[in-house]
Formats: sequence, structure tokens, C-alpha cells
Amino acid sequence: MPNSVHQNKQFSTSDSDLLTEVMAARRDVRGNRFLTDPLAQSDIDQIFAAALMAPSVGFSQPWEFVSITKAETRQQIADSFFVENEKAKALFKAGKFEAGKLEQYQQLKLEGIIETPLNIAVFYNPEKGPVLGQTSMPEMGRYSVVCAVQNMWLKARSLNIGMGWVSILDPKKVKRILNAPPERELIAYLCVGKVDKFYDKPELETLKWQARKEIDQVIVAENYQSRSI
Amino acid sequence: MPNSVHQNKQFSTSDSDLLTEVMAARRDVRGNRFLTDPLAQSDIDQIFAAALMAPSVGFSQPWEFVSITKAETRQQIADSFFVENEKAKALFKAGKFEAGKLEQYQQLKLEGIIETPLNIAVFYNPEKGPVLGQTSMPEMGRYSVVCAVQNMWLKARSLNIGMGWVSILDPKKVKRILNAPPERELIAYLCVGKVDKFYDKPELETLKWQARKEIDQVIVAENYQSRSI
Repeated sequence: MPNSVHQNKQFSTSDSDLLTEVMAARRDVRGNRFLTDPLAQSDIDQIFAAALMAPSVGFSQPWEFVSITKAETRQQIADSFFVENEKAKALFKAGKFEAGKLEQYQQLKLEGIIETPLNIAVFYNPEKGPVLGQTSMPEMGRYSVVCAVQNMWLKARSLNIGMGWVSILDPKKVKRILNAPPERELIAYLCVGKVDKFYDKPELETLKWQARKEIDQVIVAENYQSRSI
Repeated sequence: MPNSVHQNKQFSTSDSDLLTEVMAARRDVRGNRFLTDPLAQSDIDQIFAAALMAPSVGFSQPWEFVSITKAETRQQIADSFFVENEKAKALFKAGKFEAGKLEQYQQLKLEGIIETPLNIAVFYNPEKGPVLGQTSMPEMGRYSVVCAVQNMWLKARSLNIGMGWVSILDPKKVKRILNAPPERELIAYLCVGKVDKFYDKPELETLKWQARKEIDQVIVAENYQSRSI
């Protein structure tokens, strides 16, 4: 499709509404909803193609994707999750949280590393010289890689495939497990697979872990002086 | 739409293809293509609604959007761009670049701060305590905000509205101009407006500033050991 599209295309209201439907239906999927069914290679190819359509600062395309299917590798990654998740629990036990927060945390399934047929480690591969648009904000390269992840997530959902972003990992350990060169930086670790269902709402919203923010809570008109903070 | 959608919806192949069309047609738009025509409030509302549908670590929704229309503010931001862009030119003059790179850089129009009717400064508003999923990778909060920006960009394109991400700015100066509280972090500065046309390809690709990467250049099978780097 991309090659046959005239890019100056005008989209219709129903086209735009469909995009909103995909965004609204996208979920962070964890191991409690994933199926172990294999994925079609054509679907995987389309998800990677969506990544490569992301914007990137100075057209640097600083992304790299390690496609992981081997059980042994995934077990090593899962071991890092386990260690990091124990550290996280200690934080949620601390005094300033409301009672029951640790118990709620412990009941959550927070990854699908083993349950999914495909894991994808997404790295930032920095350029050696200056990059157009990145000279004043060096983090722009990493942000380009994140845009690629969001494209993958939306594309996967449109193919009725689930994706989960696992961030309770030690990036250094993940790099070591995957023999990543020193200058690469782990941006995201994704679990990809078919699902038994997509939840209507984010699980953390349903469980009242955190409330949904309304639009007027996050928009500031013109200048922060205009509102009491 | 979002409220009437059953989120477990199965999308069709043509739905998924349409998403790819939007991704393929999205462009980083600069001042040479923007029109000063006003935007409909309903379109602006839909772009912000798309932002709020983005994934966020631990459902923290750590985003904040300053909606800027005043000419005086935009002129101050444009002044920061000018200063930072002069610094950037000095970098592209340096010895290791091929001849003509500075001349090419100087001919590029890299922002649309004044030309657009709407600028949006996007900030990361960090939580005070630990955030689920952010305990091992503190940068996850910022990455959630970037996912919101990518949703906005795609939604704008589906409404046939252009968006450009300006990163040749001093984030400290932008914060000062907008009176942002100390803990806020500037993630993106967006210029939004109607366009005379969307380019078929990224301008930097057409101008051969940097070549497009092919999929096999950026995918690694299983482990970096599997390939010569």
C-alpha cells in the first residue's frame, strides 16, 4: 500500500474516525491475555514496516530491532524481570502509599515474556556525528525510536494482535543477554502475540490503580501563569 | 466515537491498510508548507483527545500541553530557535562532513513557529512517588509523553492537518518563556496548521540529506552475535 498511495491524499472523516477507534482500542497486553499461537510472518512484516514509517529527527532512523523467539533467551529476560520486580515491590511497600497498594501490585501480571511467540527488543543506535534537529536536544534520537514503537503498537492492534511494553527490566542485563554493542541503548522490550480478548479499558484504570485524567487537567492556555498550579 | 466503540473490536484488513496509509502520509511539516488559516476548534479537540489515548507507564498519563496562539510568545520561541540554529550551523561546518553540508543545512526551513496558527509545547510532569513500570527505567515517563505526541501527529494527518516537531530550541528558555514550574521537562514543541500540500516523501529523503534505511539493515535475528556489526 505505501508505495501506491499518493501521500498528498485527503482523508475523510470516516478515515479519521477509524484511526481514533484503533487508538482507543489499543491496550498494553500482559501474559494473562496472550495466546501462544504463532504469528503470521506477513503480520510481523507489517508491524516492522509501520515502525519504519515513524518520524525521526533529521531522518536519522536511529532504531534497531532484535526479534527474539528462542525460549532460552526469553527465560533469561524473564529472570531480569523477576529481580527488578522484587525491587519494585519494596518501593510500593514504602510508607507514603495508601494501604493495600503492595497487595494490589503483587496481584498484577505485568509482562508476557514467556507467553508470547515473539519478543522484540528495541534499541537506539546513536549516530557518531551531529544529527540535524538533535543538536540542542540530545534526547531526540531516543524519542524517534519511541515514535516507532507507538506505530508498531497501533499497527499490531489494527491486525488484532496484542503488544505489551515491559519496562521492569535492567537495561544493562538485557544488553548483555543480547550481546548488544556498548553504544546501543535499550528503549523498549515488547511482547507480541494473539490474545483471547482486548480489555475495554486499561487494566490499571479498571482496577482503580490510578484515575484517568480529563483533558482540562492537562491543557494549559498560553502560559503557566494563566493557572494556579 | 471512542465511547461507543466496543474495544474488543476486530479490525478488518482494509481498516489496517488505512492505518498504514495514514502512517505513510504523515510528514514533519515546516514553515514552507504551512498556511496561516485558522484551525477548527473541533479538530484541535480531536488532536488532544488522541494524545490522551496514548499508552502511559503505570497509567500515569504524565503529559501536559501548553496551547500557544499569542504572537508575542511565539516570537520569543522563534528567537530561541534562531540562537540554537546558529550553534547548529557551527557543528555542520566542522571538518568531518562532506562538502556542501552546511550550505544544504542553511537552505532548509526547519520550523513553522510563526507561520502556524497553533503551537503546542508538550511537557513531562513527573509523579512525586514511584510509578508502576518506571522503577527500573526512569525514562519511561518521558517515553509515554512521546507516544502521546505520535498519536497527535497521526490524528492531525488524518484530519489533513500538518504538524512539525521543532527541537532546535533551548528547553530551559522555552520553560522560562512559558513560566513552567521547575520539575516540568520539555519533550516536544509542535507547530500545527493547515498546509498547501503534504510532500510525497520526507524532505530530507528527497534532498538526499540521509538515505532511507531498509528493513534488513535494522532487524537483528535473536541476538547481536548472529551478525557482524
